[in-house]
Amino acid sequence: MSLELAPTPQRPRLGVPDDWYVACESRALRASPLAVELLGHRLVLFRDARGVARALQDRCSHRNVPLSMGRVCEGQVECPYHGWRFDGDGRCTHVPGLLDDDRDAGARGRAVPSLHTRESAGYVWVYSTVGVEPTREPFALPLVDDPSYTTVNHVQDFEGSVHAVAENALDVPHTAFVHRGLFRSGGETRGIDVDVQRFADRVEAEYIGEPRPDGMIGRLLSPGGGVVRHWDRFFLPCIAQVEYRLGEDSHVVATTALTPIAEHKTRMFASVSFRMPIPGRLVTMLKPIGLRILDQDVRILARQMENIRAFGGPRYASTKLDVLGPSIEKLLRTAERGDRGAPAAEGDEPARRSLRIHV
Amino acid sequence: MSLELAPTPQRPRLGVPDDWYVACESRALRASPLAVELLGHRLVLFRDARGVARALQDRCSHRNVPLSMGRVCEGQVECPYHGWRFDGDGRCTHVPGLLDDDRDAGARGRAVPSLHTRESAGYVWVYSTVGVEPTREPFALPLVDDPSYTTVNHVQDFEGSVHAVAENALDVPHTAFVHRGLFRSGGETRGIDVDVQRFADRVEAEYIGEPRPDGMIGRLLSPGGGVVRHWDRFFLPCIAQVEYRLGEDSHVVATTALTPIAEHKTRMFASVSFRMPIPGRLVTMLKPIGLRILDQDVRILARQMENIRAFGGPRYASTKLDVLGPSIEKLLRTAERGDRGAPAAEGDEPARRSLRIHV
Amino acid sequence: MSLELAPTPQRPRLGVPDDWYVACESRALRASPLAVELLGHRLVLFRDARGVARALQDRCSHRNVPLSMGRVCEGQVECPYHGWRFDGDGRCTHVPGLLDDDRDAGARGRAVPSLHTRESAGYVWVYSTVGVEPTREPFALPLVDDPSYTTVNHVQDFEGSVHAVAENALDVPHTAFVHRGLFRSGGETRGIDVDVQRFADRVEAEYIGEPRPDGMIGRLLSPGGGVVRHWDRFFLPCIAQVEYRLGEDSHVVATTALTPIAEHKTRMFASVSFRMPIPGRLVTMLKPIGLRILDQDVRILARQMENIRAFGGPRYASTKLDVLGPSIEKLLRTAERGDRGAPAAEGDEPARRSLRIHV
Repeated sequence: MSLELAPTPQRPRLGVPDDWYVACESRALRASPLAVELLGHRLVLFRDARGVARALQDRCSHRNVPLSMGRVCEGQVECPYHGWRFDGDGRCTHVPGLLDDDRDAGARGRAVPSLHTRESAGYVWVYSTVGVEPTREPFALPLVDDPSYTTVNHVQDFEGSVHAVAENALDVPHTAFVHRGLFRSGGETRGIDVDVQRFADRVEAEYIGEPRPDGMIGRLLSPGGGVVRHWDRFFLPCIAQVEYRLGEDSHVVATTALTPIAEHKTRMFASVSFRMPIPGRLVTMLKPIGLRILDQDVRILARQMENIRAFGGPRYASTKLDVLGPSIEKLLRTAERGDRGAPAAEGDEPARRSLRIHV
Repeated sequence: MSLELAPTPQRPRLGVPDDWYVACESRALRASPLAVELLGHRLVLFRDARGVARALQDRCSHRNVPLSMGRVCEGQVECPYHGWRFDGDGRCTHVPGLLDDDRDAGARGRAVPSLHTRESAGYVWVYSTVGVEPTREPFALPLVDDPSYTTVNHVQDFEGSVHAVAENALDVPHTAFVHRGLFRSGGETRGIDVDVQRFADRVEAEYIGEPRPDGMIGRLLSPGGGVVRHWDRFFLPCIAQVEYRLGEDSHVVATTALTPIAEHKTRMFASVSFRMPIPGRLVTMLKPIGLRILDQDVRILARQMENIRAFGGPRYASTKLDVLGPSIEKLLRTAERGDRGAPAAEGDEPARRSLRIHV
Repeated sequence: MSLELAPTPQRPRLGVPDDWYVACESRALRASPLAVELLGHRLVLFRDARGVARALQDRCSHRNVPLSMGRVCEGQVECPYHGWRFDGDGRCTHVPGLLDDDRDAGARGRAVPSLHTRESAGYVWVYSTVGVEPTREPFALPLVDDPSYTTVNHVQDFEGSVHAVAENALDVPHTAFVHRGLFRSGGETRGIDVDVQRFADRVEAEYIGEPRPDGMIGRLLSPGGGVVRHWDRFFLPCIAQVEYRLGEDSHVVATTALTPIAEHKTRMFASVSFRMPIPGRLVTMLKPIGLRILDQDVRILARQMENIRAFGGPRYASTKLDVLGPSIEKLLRTAERGDRGAPAAEGDEPARRSLRIHV
């Protein structure tokens, strides 16, 4: 059964083995079974009798109809074709019409592969390797349970790899071009020092001496101007995180979990937690701006992906301005091969690099 | 020429060699040439000067334009590009502009492969192997010429293989789920004995002691209840047949000819002959119900097929409730390889199997 | 860099190496960068500071976004993602945010392949081989600069190869079928002598003793009837030309440049120069007729192409009525392999062939 989600020549590996990816928002998984794509595979999610999220391969073992087309009965998922039922472990618990003495024979062959799940921070996470016990827990999102912060969520699909989407989310220079006028003005630039630390399972850039972004967003968040503290981070296997502190009062952490759902297709689960010195109504005003920025990124990444496919693969020239992209690529490629190092521990000395850019 | 319809790596064999498939309803083939797909190949059908249905490969030998885009002139099909004409044997009979003394040279290279045809029971049948004399005749549909029976016809395309469509047509347990409330109620079940006989070229299941189906259809067809006689049959290469007798007066035989038109695509030519003790108006009322049942099957088979493609092929777990499906699969696979045995003759002893199911 | 446009197993060679193809009409290339497809490759065209048309591979060397999605700044094309700029030779001239002392390192890796261009006869031509100096000039269209002639232009996409489109454009017999009633009447035919001359880089057919075409067009162009002089010509790599003289006064030369833009897709750049003894208003009336003829050819070629793909490739039977098609095929196949002979010079003795056809 563990072979079911393994890569094949027709279906190359997507994602990092032995780690957690977000399959859906918790609030999206209700009384009906839910079809999700994850790492190029079709899964059905449902809640068992105790309300626990469960994940099976979305193919009835009998005649291969998607179980997600059926219904949940007493915490089990029922196929719509002949009514076979499966529990959260993938065991076939009921074959309508089959007499008692025929039930045991072949029962093992009627099982459906199941995947480990966790539910935390408003998400259902699925473990990327079948048939083994998880060796770690899902990424712990900061601040989502802190009552002094407000958290908003958004799900967004991208044409593009996890690498391309993460690099875009953590890339500073494109904002002056793709988001001209919204995020940065594209006018006069100034030098900023960047301090990059690379660990075995993550990479972080701290921007030092960055001015308040001009453009609309900066003026709203920090009317008095002042220096900004700003970190961009990527954590294996799928987390891109941006943290901003503007003065004492404004604090924003945007954490996105990036799930490769199919080749060239990535689903972003964004969770933005913030504390700000402005009235709620003004924060509400930011949402359309945020969605517009997201839409601009969706468009440029779609054109990038489409061009990469047309040219038969990516070929990137990088400069020092590509602060995190090449490191993210390296972390992902290593982890995809299973050659991942131990996670960074307290006191580990990271690889450090400092640079100066103009933005 | 016999190579033209042979399987290639790009175009795997569809269907059984050396046998007959329905290409179209007789009434669909009129004055114009008709493009049909059959076993993954493009054919043009037309009527020759005597009105006989003829079938050619749908590609002009000159510049490969579909002949079906042209017209029929004096019982020959004319290409719309340069007016080349072909008779029912595929011979090129006319090249406009070519002088007499140039006509013979290369005439053989201008021929188009032709296929054997038959017309019976309201259908045009085409022989699946080019360049050989047919060794058998098309399946003889019962009752279509019996004046005490009414026959209605319907053509329906399915996403799915001949095996998947035939199994669905002859499968009892799915009716309680896919056609819940229409065909069977899905409520209380009872044990039924099934007697299965397998011959070299067909398989038949007889259901013994089956109650009148509850649900709407049962109540219409046999208001007084009573025991039903019911047979499901599959005949190589493409016939799925259901026969019901309810008491003395109701008799229905539904014969479907299943033509693989392309990979994963099957066209069903259904012919239902019946004699019933109810007024014609009530029978008319059954048609929408029949179409709704058909539509429910079309949908579930489309989802099944789509899932099978996504998972790279079927993987079925069967139980004894799958009364005919596995036998149909075996008959088809053997016949597709050309390893078909002699047809069953009078007095042949079939392989028998009895079982008891709950439906 | 010269490898970028080379054929690969996934992307077979389209077109003839070391020669010129029309990429766009001059009037279509204005202030914005223009995406064009040429020989299966994506190019961006733009005008440099001197107004000269330039052509680069349409993929930013940085993150592979199409440069055609950006803008032209001071005669250079600017990528919309991070603002990298490229001049007409493909050199990266500006990376926003990169400090002076970082600009040189890796500059060569930031270049984008460029292609040679010419602008003549109202077209931008691009050389089909990267990284070499052109050894010839684009085809010189006759009469386009002659003030006693009127020239009209039209761009038309076809489903079909250059060979199929050129053969269609220069084929006489199909006009009686595809353009029945418009171009030729399809009625009584008469014998015509055709004189064919084949050179190393072109082939020409002269029709001798051809009657004025009956049908509408013939009646308009030569109300008095009379004998027609008519030549059909194909020049490597992409020119199909039809010339008609009707009496002393009517003279039409239709030159089409055929650009393979993708597999199975050809863009026709048509330029018709004419001098006629009829009022301008009547000539205007001819345009809808010309477009209707073109549309009829577009349709039949699309069906031809679609059928060729369905059957896995073309298989043509030709007769002597296929006056130029097989020669065009031979010229193209030889030139595509790079085995092209020297261009025909004054005094070269062509291969001659005479034939008589009925049209």
